[in-house]
Amino acid sequence: MRKTTIEDWLTDLASELPAPGGGAAAGVNAAMGAALVSMVCNLTIGKPKFAEHETVMREALAEAERLRLEALQLAEDDAEAFSGVVAAYKLPKSSDEEKAARTAAIQAGLVEAAAVPLAVAKVAAQVIRLSGRVLEGSNPNVLSDVAVAASAAKSALESAALNVDINLVSIKDPAERERLASSLNEALQSKVQAEAIMQAVAKRIRA
Amino acid sequence: MRKTTIEDWLTDLASELPAPGGGAAAGVNAAMGAALVSMVCNLTIGKPKFAEHETVMREALAEAERLRLEALQLAEDDAEAFSGVVAAYKLPKSSDEEKAARTAAIQAGLVEAAAVPLAVAKVAAQVIRLSGRVLEGSNPNVLSDVAVAASAAKSALESAALNVDINLVSIKDPAERERLASSLNEALQSKVQAEAIMQAVAKRIRA
Repeated sequence: MRKTTIEDWLTDLASELPAPGGGAAAGVNAAMGAALVSMVCNLTIGKPKFAEHETVMREALAEAERLRLEALQLAEDDAEAFSGVVAAYKLPKSSDEEKAARTAAIQAGLVEAAAVPLAVAKVAAQVIRLSGRVLEGSNPNVLSDVAVAASAAKSALESAALNVDINLVSIKDPAERERLASSLNEALQSKVQAEAIMQAVAKRIRA
Repeated sequence: MRKTTIEDWLTDLASELPAPGGGAAAGVNAAMGAALVSMVCNLTIGKPKFAEHETVMREALAEAERLRLEALQLAEDDAEAFSGVVAAYKLPKSSDEEKAARTAAIQAGLVEAAAVPLAVAKVAAQVIRLSGRVLEGSNPNVLSDVAVAASAAKSALESAALNVDINLVSIKDPAERERLASSLNEALQSKVQAEAIMQAVAKRIRA
């Protein structure tokens, strides 16, 4: 997917193929958010005017670069995420033993399928926190890009959360459900910060 | 830009180059939203089970295809949007006549520069309305993609709005300011619908 042109990837997204779909779009959105944080850092680092923020910006840049690659990898992984569930549904179910094995395989597949969007949600939450860290020291010329980074990451977060939920509702093990739900809720806390960043930037632009 | 690979475009976005930046990211987000509406339509059309929604889905598909191409074109145009302002700032300002001509050119450039993000905001608002139109009749297997489409378009809308505002605050003609602000506010009304779509889908997934 990473070697596909933007035009072709959007055409694939629009097509009747099941993948790429909303899961991959969420991953790309998290990657765009991370890339914009990198840009903000790159346009702030090395300028004497912003020297006091140099350390924060250098650290943020390293993390943003890592998160962009991770998000892009997750966008690629998304196409495979559900394949285990699909394969499990095709298992034989003639005997009680077969039925039990099939149910167990479906359940294991659902837990695996939830792992990719959960990872996207976590990366997106990290991008939001990183946008918050660069907000104060950002070169004012790219302040709006800090807000766009937070907005793209917020969309990635809420989109990934839906894809976790889709799998979550079919998982029967209460412990597994609880583990996934609590991990997702933790990531979702960052939505409030994304809104706050958007509002702070809008206020500074209009000031 | 459309012929760039996703990986390379994200690297350009992350770089210290002024373009692509948040404006282009907003355009890509609107295009992702439109592409997902197309996917939803493509996976609903032609299935006897959803025959009663066939007409709506066919109309929505045609509009989503058009909006995707328009959003991608706007993402490309964004790099050029600010070039008129940059050129105007470089005009000579030795005499009063030169100063007046330079100010007029800067003002004209700002109005032009606001036009691209305003167009992105309008396209994003249309993608949100289109997500709302396909919500009821969507193949339930791709219901989450309707919500991801609305979320991506909402991010495009709020990001583009910031980029309109950046130019708006420097425009001196009250009539021009009013025209841009009122046009932007109309598009921003669709944010509420995007939230409602996200919530409706989340509720149906958990039901």
